[in-house]
Formats: sequence, structure tokens, C-alpha cells
Amino acid sequence: MTAEGTAQHVVDLNADLGESYGAWRLGDDEALLGIVTSANIACGFHAGDPLTIRRACANAIARGVAIGAQVSYQDLAGFGRREMIVPSDELAAEILYQIAALDGIAKAEGGRVTYVKPHGALYNRAVRDPEQAAAIAAAVRSYDDQLPILSLPGSATAAAATSAGLTPVAEAFGDRAYNDDATLVKRGRPGAVITDPEVVAARVTRLVTDGTLQSISGQELRISARSVCIHGDTPGAVALARGVRTALQQAGVTLAPFA
Amino acid sequence: MTAEGTAQHVVDLNADLGESYGAWRLGDDEALLGIVTSANIACGFHAGDPLTIRRACANAIARGVAIGAQVSYQDLAGFGRREMIVPSDELAAEILYQIAALDGIAKAEGGRVTYVKPHGALYNRAVRDPEQAAAIAAAVRSYDDQLPILSLPGSATAAAATSAGLTPVAEAFGDRAYNDDATLVKRGRPGAVITDPEVVAARVTRLVTDGTLQSISGQELRISARSVCIHGDTPGAVALARGVRTALQQAGVTLAPFA
Amino acid sequence: MTAEGTAQHVVDLNADLGESYGAWRLGDDEALLGIVTSANIACGFHAGDPLTIRRACANAIARGVAIGAQVSYQDLAGFGRREMIVPSDELAAEILYQIAALDGIAKAEGGRVTYVKPHGALYNRAVRDPEQAAAIAAAVRSYDDQLPILSLPGSATAAAATSAGLTPVAEAFGDRAYNDDATLVKRGRPGAVITDPEVVAARVTRLVTDGTLQSISGQELRISARSVCIHGDTPGAVALARGVRTALQQAGVTLAPFA
Amino acid sequence: MTAEGTAQHVVDLNADLGESYGAWRLGDDEALLGIVTSANIACGFHAGDPLTIRRACANAIARGVAIGAQVSYQDLAGFGRREMIVPSDELAAEILYQIAALDGIAKAEGGRVTYVKPHGALYNRAVRDPEQAAAIAAAVRSYDDQLPILSLPGSATAAAATSAGLTPVAEAFGDRAYNDDATLVKRGRPGAVITDPEVVAARVTRLVTDGTLQSISGQELRISARSVCIHGDTPGAVALARGVRTALQQAGVTLAPFA
Repeated sequence: MTAEGTAQHVVDLNADLGESYGAWRLGDDEALLGIVTSANIACGFHAGDPLTIRRACANAIARGVAIGAQVSYQDLAGFGRREMIVPSDELAAEILYQIAALDGIAKAEGGRVTYVKPHGALYNRAVRDPEQAAAIAAAVRSYDDQLPILSLPGSATAAAATSAGLTPVAEAFGDRAYNDDATLVKRGRPGAVITDPEVVAARVTRLVTDGTLQSISGQELRISARSVCIHGDTPGAVALARGVRTALQQAGVTLAPFA
Repeated sequence: MTAEGTAQHVVDLNADLGESYGAWRLGDDEALLGIVTSANIACGFHAGDPLTIRRACANAIARGVAIGAQVSYQDLAGFGRREMIVPSDELAAEILYQIAALDGIAKAEGGRVTYVKPHGALYNRAVRDPEQAAAIAAAVRSYDDQLPILSLPGSATAAAATSAGLTPVAEAFGDRAYNDDATLVKRGRPGAVITDPEVVAARVTRLVTDGTLQSISGQELRISARSVCIHGDTPGAVALARGVRTALQQAGVTLAPFA
Repeated sequence: MTAEGTAQHVVDLNADLGESYGAWRLGDDEALLGIVTSANIACGFHAGDPLTIRRACANAIARGVAIGAQVSYQDLAGFGRREMIVPSDELAAEILYQIAALDGIAKAEGGRVTYVKPHGALYNRAVRDPEQAAAIAAAVRSYDDQLPILSLPGSATAAAATSAGLTPVAEAFGDRAYNDDATLVKRGRPGAVITDPEVVAARVTRLVTDGTLQSISGQELRISARSVCIHGDTPGAVALARGVRTALQQAGVTLAPFA
Repeated sequence: MTAEGTAQHVVDLNADLGESYGAWRLGDDEALLGIVTSANIACGFHAGDPLTIRRACANAIARGVAIGAQVSYQDLAGFGRREMIVPSDELAAEILYQIAALDGIAKAEGGRVTYVKPHGALYNRAVRDPEQAAAIAAAVRSYDDQLPILSLPGSATAAAATSAGLTPVAEAFGDRAYNDDATLVKRGRPGAVITDPEVVAARVTRLVTDGTLQSISGQELRISARSVCIHGDTPGAVALARGVRTALQQAGVTLAPFA
């Protein structure tokens, strides 16, 4: 019965890759490709020069890891972490440009982009801003209406995807605390980021196998997530991610891309 | 018999489009789309923000004008006119990125990129530099080996295209003087640029119908060109371009994209 | 008595200059330098490549026009018109960098920066955002606490300048309608922009000589402004600006920089 | 007698600092500031966002390390390592802009720029290109004719500095092999880079105390250098640099900025 039950559990692990730029290195792409099943590859607007992107695509393809377009505001200096108020037509064109650039490079390397995930400040803004969320969805739809958008469940991003006839895919965060309303506790608040590898591994495993997660106040939340976001920009984060993967595998969970 | 003869003459007129950037306008895209059969659309590296590119693609498609990727060094401040020594793998990745971005936007608007033309300093460098020419050809081939590359006949660019199994397409310049060896007289030299609309129209017509052009020293050159480059970044240039088109049509020449 | 009265009226006319970038031209700097007494010169973050800036400084100095640092968000693609949420220490450093770059160029040309004016979205945001306003003031103060900041009277920008021990200087807009609370009617609303040259000239003259301006609802507002902002990015705007200057001179107003 | 002799030996150690950009970290500025006497701080064109620059200036000033403007081509993606052919007036304006920006930030932090050093491809190009060298010298002179330019002895850069009435300052490289004509052996050639810390320390000490250096073919070269360039972008390089400093101090050499 255990075998039967666990056989039904499938989850994707996603992480940001290709975020180096020219002479600057960021993240341990090689290590992450041994852990995740989906790679959110930078598209050049917040990180990722063309050669870095090309290598990230080639490596992801070689390892059987799915490629997602990690689209961003145009802000290298701020790494896409500075919120911007961009007119919808400009934002949609900027996102379309990024998806197209990455997908063309992926195709040149024998793969393709199979989903889109907003990055940084765009991710956070779109979660609560229907206008920017709609611009993202419109861009994706104009390029390929079969591409799902990865974001928070219940977000404006997910709603805009649905409205545009696209598929929203829900992700969860193993290393972040949740409020009682299933939103993330803001970074900077006490307890917002969970650093104990065993706690993170246990939370993710329970989330995937039970569909539940304990909120910061101790309430049990029901959260359905097809993907779990993994942070990998520090050595400790990579070890933590590896622990999550191991724990999921030991619990009989199948790790597989959602797209 | 004249009608029979001229019916065999076909030429393409190409011009640079989509070279505005954000608040800055450049060129009269609308006027040029009524004249040319191929639009070299900027890809964002020397000019062309995503929304400008998108609109240029939509307009070209609406007017039945072919879309080419006008790939460049990464140099907004210099408008791609400053020669750069870029390692081959970086250059190839940068060009691949640009072609992919433009083609994806063109597809979103119902068209596609059907050729590639290097811009500015990259064009001039590749004409004489086999290494950069090879990087361009490698990038094109990695994206789509059916895309021809537009450049000067006899150039390193054309040779690299052939070596890579691609199709080089030759272009000529109606408003530029030629040396006896069929290279262009450098800008800045006396007589390098021809500004008399009637002279330009007559030269282009003779080039297309006879395959000949008079060099700056008065020699008759044999030049075979499937496309003629039109400059359109000044009001005078647009009128001159219109004169070329009219003269060709009056001579019974068919204007059609080469790709 | 009229002569005595008008002799006391002094106002500055300011306009944006140096907003070309590389191959792209914007605005008629030459014409504006014959009209205004202060030039808000772009510093390279929203417009203004170094050579453009240098020429703008040289020309302003040659014409006896004061030079102000027109500081902006780092957003060439959006021309500084896209609001950004930038951490205070980053924003202050970005503004300091811009002031320093412009002032050093001005000095190399024999002049200097004598005031600071935020540009575009930064101007609008700082008017209502004490945090960004404080970052601007901190940057100015760290560079030179004798530099005044030009903005709307009653704005958060002006308050932050005062708090930092700097001098806020108030400007008014001749071609913009005002609400009853002396804020500007938003662009896009009916009647927000006044285009009749005679109306604009009359409004500015009355503002300078009487300190009053009629609001969009017909109320008389008392507005004190040491400078009037002139828009010059269209041919019509230049003519309108010239009309303002002529009207002020005919009313006996002295035109002079405030710094 | 030894004491008398060594008391006459003074040398500067210079290294590149402030080369992080936004989220990307590069180099160990903190460690280098404990080793060098001059910091070539990036100015934003190849590296160095404004906040990174500001912190680098503050730290250099706090440690009594001289600040030099590390001016570069405008090429973030290539880290200023890609040679560019830039018209002289553009290049001079770009360099002036960078010096001014850095100097203004340094002044805001209580210091100032006391010299200029070209970076990367600009450094290498100017060594052999009198035109670009002259543009650099013209830029420096226009800003402050008391600022020396740091480069290779016998270079076009040094000659241009002298022609412009500026002071060229010669630097040597402890970790690079020299040809018999006192030029550097190109990177990539066997033996071009010396990695043994003891060998490097011995070479630098001999260079400073004897004015001699052994060429790659074994010849003794006479080289006069007021500064020695230290590379610090790897952990090994920092240890090597520390070894150089210790060896010089043990030989009684005084370490002091040249400007």
C-alpha cells in the first residue's frame, strides 16, 4: 500500500541557472543540474550573457533537465530585483524577446523552452499586480500557448495565465515560512527563511506526500504544488537542495519535470 | 523582346528598419516599407528595443516585406559602428541570441526571419576577417541552415557562409562608389557617396539589367547582386530610394525578396 | 510704478538638454540654449552619452546658461520614464555618480554644475516618496551641500532638501494645467497639457509677475516659483518656449539662472 | 650600508578593485587593501556599479590606499577585455566621464583620484596605438593635468602622456614573463604567467632593488618601475601578492603610493 501511495507522488524541483554574466560567476550550475529537474535559465535581462545562456542550455539538455525562460525586468545593475512600472505593451514585448532568445538558443543546442517563470521583482510584482501578470501571459501566449507559467498558487500570475488560456503551474518554497493565508512571510521578518536542512527536507517531503505545510503560526495549510523551488546561489543552499532531493527519493517520490 | 528580356530581371531592395530605441526615433520605417522588399530589422544590440522590433516585424509582415536579422556587436552607445575584437564563441552566441530573439518576435506576429545581415562595424569587419565571418556563419547554421547571409560578393562573409553550407547572397550599393577591384570606396574619400538621385537610379538600373557598374576610375565592373542596399535614415535618402524603385519598375525589373 | 514693480521680477527658464544618445538625436539643444537660462543636462543614465554631454556642457557654457544635473533611474530603454523601487543606498550612489560625472565634464569645459533636477519617473516618484527624495538629497549633500534641488513646491523632494540642509528651488509649468491643490493635472486627462502659445505665455507671465495661476476648475492659485520648466522636444514646443521668453521680457521680467 | 641602500628603494603596489557589479562579486577587495598602496578602482564601464564604487572608495580611503581611475571601454558584457575601435573624441569623452564620476565619489567619501590607469583591452591597445593613447591623455589633461597615467614603460600610453604635459608612471608585472625587448610575453604562450609565489616574490624584489629582471630567454633586462601590478582576482593571487609585499618589506623596500 505504501508503494502504491508513493508511486502517485510526483514533483519537480526547479532552480535558477545561467545567472553568470561575462566575467562574473554566480551560482553552481553544475551542482544544481545534478539535483533539479527544471532549470530556470536567465535570458539576458537581469543576468546571462549569450554564451553563458548557451552553455547552460547545453548542460541542461545533456542532463535531461527541462529548460524554463526566467524572464525579468531589464535591469542588469539591479539583477532584476528592483520593481519597475513598465507599460504593458513594453513589458509584453520585453518578455517575448527574452523567451524567443532563450528558446532559439535552446533549439540550437537540441532542446527547447518548455515553461516560463518570472524572476525576482517581476515575479513578486506579478503575483499581486493583474496588469503586469496579464502582460506576462500575453507575451507567453503570443509566443507559444502551450508553455505553462510557473508561479505561486493563487497569484495574479496564475489567474492571468488561466485567463489567457495558458496553464499555470504552482510552486512551493521549502526554505521559506508561510503565513496563515498561504502567502510567503516576507524576507527580513524573523523566521522567514528556514536554514536547517533537515527541517527543509521534512517540510518539502510532507508537502509533496501529504499536500500540507505548517504555517509560521503553527496552522496546517493545504498547498498543492507541482514544483518546489530550490535556491542554489550559496554552497550551503546546494547542500540543502541535495538533502531535499534525497529525502524525496527516500520517500518514494518521483522527481520529474512538469513540462 | 525588351519585355521578354526585362522579365528575367529580378532584384531585391533591402534597408535597415527597427532602429529606434525607447524614446529615440531613427529612420522612416513607414516610408521604407513602401519601397523595399526586405527589411533588415535591428535585434536590440545596436538598436531596437523589443517593442520597436515587434512593431517593425508586424509592419513588415503586413506589407509583405521579408524580415532579416540585422545582427550587430553589443554596442548601443556606438550604434554598432565601433569595431570590436570578440572571441569567436562569444560572438557566435551573441549572434545566435539576436537571430533567435528576432525570429521569435516575427513568429509571434505571423512571420519569420528569412535571412541574416550583419550590421555596421560587424559587417565591415566580417567582410575582411575570416574568423568573425566564420563565427557569424556558425551562429546562423546553429539556428537554421536554410537562412542565407546577405553581404558583399567576394567577401570573407560570403566565403564563410559557403564553407558552413549556407547560402551567401550578394548585395550592391547604388549610392556608393566602387574601386576597380569591386570593393567600396571608403566613406570620407571624395566621391565615395553618390547623392544625385538620377545618377543613383541609373546606376542601379544598369547594375540590375546589365550586371555592370562603372568604377570611380571609369572602368566597367561586372557585379552580380541579388539585392541592392537602400539607405533610408534621412528624408533625402527616402526620396532617393523611391527613385531607385521607380526606375527599376520602369525598366521592367521585378522587385522581390530573395528569401 | 509698473516699471518699479516689474524690475523686481526675476525668473529662470529651465529645459532638458543633452538627451541625445549615440546615433539618436533628441531635442533641439541649439534652439533651447537661445531661450532658457538653465539647462538640465542628462547624465548618461536615461540619455546622454559622454560626448553628447560634453558638447551640451560646452554649448551651455558658451551661451552663459547654467548647468544642472538631470539625474535619473538607470533606464536607457525606458528613457527614465519607468518608475523603479531602488534601495536608498543604491539610489544615492547612482545619483552621486551622475552628478560627479556631469560636474567633472562641465569643469573640463570651463563651467560647473550649479543645481540638481531629478528626471522623469524619479522626479515624479520623489515628489511623493520621502524615501527616494531623501536618497536624492543625501546624494547631493554628499557631493556639494551648496547645490540646490529643483522640483515642485511642496513636494517630498523639497522637504527632503530642506531636511538635509540643502536649498529647494521651486519650479512651475507653463504648459500644464494645475489642480486646485496646486498639483499637476495628470497627463492624459482632458486639458492636462496646454498647447496654445498665447495662453501659455500669458499664464507664465501672470505667474511670474503676480504669483498666481488659474487652476483647471477656475480657482486662483498662489504659486511661488523661481524657475519655469520649458519643454523643447518638439518644434512646436520650441516656438512656444520662445513665446514665453518674449512675453516675459516684454513684461519687464528679468531672466536669470537661480544658481 | 644595507640600511642606507634599501632606504632609497620605494615602490608602489597597485591592484584592480571595485570590480563587482550589482549582485555579482569579483575579487577580494578587503584582502587587497591590506596589501597594495594604490587601488585601480573600476568606473562603471567594464565593472563597478555606483554603490560598489562608493564602498571601494570609502574602504581605500580608510586604509590609506591611493585611488586611481581604472578607465575602460564601455563593455560590461566583455569586462572591458574586447578591443574596440572608438573615435578619439568619443573615447576621450568616455574616459573623462569615468574619471569625473570616480573622482566625485571619492571626494564625497573624503578622498580623491590621484592617477589614471587604463583597463584591459584599452590598456593593451593604448600601449601600441598612439591615437587611443592620445585620447586617454587628452581626457586626463582636460580633467586635471596633475594626474599621472600608469602604464608600461616605453608604451604609446607613456609617450602620449608626456606629449600632453602629463606624467607617465611606469609599472611592472611580477607574475608575467618578459620578452627580450621588455614587452610582456603574451598570455597563452608557455611560461607567460609565473605562478610560483617564491619566484614572483624574488623577481619583484630584484626588480625593485636592482632594477633588473630576467627575460624568458634568460637575458637580464633593465626595467625601471615605480609601481608593480598585483593581480588579486583569485585566492591564490591574493596569497601571492601578500608574499610579494612581505618579501619587499623584508628587503627594506618602502611601500608607498606614487601619487
